[in-house]
Amino acid sequence: MSSQKIIYIDNNATTPVDSEVREVMLPFLGTQYANPSGPYGPARAASRILHQSREQVAALFGVAPDTILFTSGGTESNNTAIHIAMRAAPHKCHVITTRVEHPSVLKYMNYIETIGYRVTYLTLNKDGVLDEDEFKNALNKETALVSIMTANNETGILFPIERYSLLSHKYGALFHTDAIQAIGKISVPGIESSVDFISFSGHKFHGPKGIGGLYIRKGIKTGPYLLGGDQEQGRRAGTENVPGIAGLGKAAELAQKHQPFMKSKVQKIRDTFEEEVYEQINGTHIIGKDQHRLPNTSFIIFDDIESDAVLALMDIEGICCSSGSACSSGSAEPSYVLSAMGYSKVESKGAMRFSFSRFNTTEEIQVVIHHLPSIIKKIKGYAKSSN
Amino acid sequence: MSSQKIIYIDNNATTPVDSEVREVMLPFLGTQYANPSGPYGPARAASRILHQSREQVAALFGVAPDTILFTSGGTESNNTAIHIAMRAAPHKCHVITTRVEHPSVLKYMNYIETIGYRVTYLTLNKDGVLDEDEFKNALNKETALVSIMTANNETGILFPIERYSLLSHKYGALFHTDAIQAIGKISVPGIESSVDFISFSGHKFHGPKGIGGLYIRKGIKTGPYLLGGDQEQGRRAGTENVPGIAGLGKAAELAQKHQPFMKSKVQKIRDTFEEEVYEQINGTHIIGKDQHRLPNTSFIIFDDIESDAVLALMDIEGICCSSGSACSSGSAEPSYVLSAMGYSKVESKGAMRFSFSRFNTTEEIQVVIHHLPSIIKKIKGYAKSSN
Repeated sequence: MSSQKIIYIDNNATTPVDSEVREVMLPFLGTQYANPSGPYGPARAASRILHQSREQVAALFGVAPDTILFTSGGTESNNTAIHIAMRAAPHKCHVITTRVEHPSVLKYMNYIETIGYRVTYLTLNKDGVLDEDEFKNALNKETALVSIMTANNETGILFPIERYSLLSHKYGALFHTDAIQAIGKISVPGIESSVDFISFSGHKFHGPKGIGGLYIRKGIKTGPYLLGGDQEQGRRAGTENVPGIAGLGKAAELAQKHQPFMKSKVQKIRDTFEEEVYEQINGTHIIGKDQHRLPNTSFIIFDDIESDAVLALMDIEGICCSSGSACSSGSAEPSYVLSAMGYSKVESKGAMRFSFSRFNTTEEIQVVIHHLPSIIKKIKGYAKSSN
Repeated sequence: MSSQKIIYIDNNATTPVDSEVREVMLPFLGTQYANPSGPYGPARAASRILHQSREQVAALFGVAPDTILFTSGGTESNNTAIHIAMRAAPHKCHVITTRVEHPSVLKYMNYIETIGYRVTYLTLNKDGVLDEDEFKNALNKETALVSIMTANNETGILFPIERYSLLSHKYGALFHTDAIQAIGKISVPGIESSVDFISFSGHKFHGPKGIGGLYIRKGIKTGPYLLGGDQEQGRRAGTENVPGIAGLGKAAELAQKHQPFMKSKVQKIRDTFEEEVYEQINGTHIIGKDQHRLPNTSFIIFDDIESDAVLALMDIEGICCSSGSACSSGSAEPSYVLSAMGYSKVESKGAMRFSFSRFNTTEEIQVVIHHLPSIIKKIKGYAKSSN
């Protein structure tokens, strides 16, 4: 193992597990291993932590605990929300979403097209703003579901979820938001009062991987996506991931506690970073700079570089960042999000995502700002000399 | 917290996490939190543990690592296997299973009936043996899949999986086995050479909850059940549960190491327990006594008692056992497994399951044997006096 200090600024891919989260998980990986469904004392202790975690998560949203369903993560949550919405409105055959949703929404949409649904994929402009006229024109009485993310995972740009949800409801459509990048980072105005389904994932806000959840508004007829035992009030089969759920609950509690610092600390770090980078590197384009954005995310296109080369040199310096969503890693294709926003392949190839968390320090950002301009300069130099 | 010593003999519901398993998980809940898909050093470390765990699990089955898919647990594995099998044979519309499968198989079978499949549910006799003539008569060229468990979760009775699989293949049907109760306890003859899909779950063999897997024979056309990112070679979307997968791999390695002791230690404990109970308690019926059974499981019907009353008094003594599957806990219904085997409601109400592990000691079993006969005697006394 190298003893190099790692600077981790890829917090939209995953986040460090908070040590307090790990602490609450440990007993359930130790002596408190009982299956919560068992007919004995130790099982009741496991059952109590499920109850407590559900309350902690519900408090983060301001909803009732029994509206929260635990899943294996954001992907299962998104798949489940669409699945339930289709079953809740079995005679409708139209769904609306955007071209910049996460693959766990987009691929499920592609799937439901194969079983007879018509899906409208809304387009965006270069600032990441939806064409609302296109949205309004697409809505009709046949629309079963509208699924629009709260914040884009690559750009961090926020959508006006409350307004879109109310608009969808006017046409009798259910409204789902993939809030996986937003939950734990910001409070989303009106989300709890207007939205029907909210997906979230523990590892995006300092909880463990392998656990997530779905808020389902009371009154919506639900059937399970994973079929089997009667866990989660018959809404999700499978022995509960007790340590994961314990960790998710604690992560939700901590997110609520730390939320005020997202603006005062994390956004300050992000803004300083963007100012310095903009000043020091010619040809810097900050995507969605004037839009409502997540306080932790900076998505930047640098002219005349390929982001992979920058990532490799940043990695050598122990700095972890990315060129976009981790899901499509290893792929040479440019960001589908930028492509949906109207950027060309040539424009997209210099795109990089920097995503911060409350564990990042001002000192770390100074190190990043020290290295990034010279790395980009070096790569531009290579490019020129090889031309 | 009470300081009462707990004797845990409900290891078919879940098992204690081995401390060595917990140890390998901890770094991935600590400093090694990176998303394995990230383009930097720490991600490659996460990626390496996925690779290593896949090798450890594959070694337990004697198969190639790339045939192993990680899931969120046994339920997802079972759902996925049936889902893939249906897609692999899209023009066939018949499936065969048994009436004693786990709910994660049975409910998925109920579901596929609603989308046009015909499902044959095979019956069993009171010894838990399948009617092979019924099986042979049901098989035909339209049979897409046969799904028969390796060991029943309540009775522990083993099915001759290799023979059933070869028979299914004669008719061109794929063969799936839910081996969740068997894997990590016994080696199943011919499983790796004959079966197309094998489901398994970490928490049944001293691994963590929330992680499991599916073996898929090479050459079977697979599509993902959870749709989204390209993780698991495009066969299962969602950020990998790295600590869970690390734990599963270690649990598989330890299971292989300890397998010889299942017979020499765990079965000895189980057999001693059964002998003593049979001797001391009148009206003891050991289900499947003369059948091939898991070495750790004892499923017993006691005459003239209700198992719930026994469980409550055992709980007071700190002894954790059950009346059957944990999935249906809280339900007043008798075991559907016993019902499928031809036992009446009256016969079934005194059914109890005792399932041991390598962590149980001879001393613990002596304590159980000390309490159980007097508890049953007491309950029979109550029953008589209230008549």
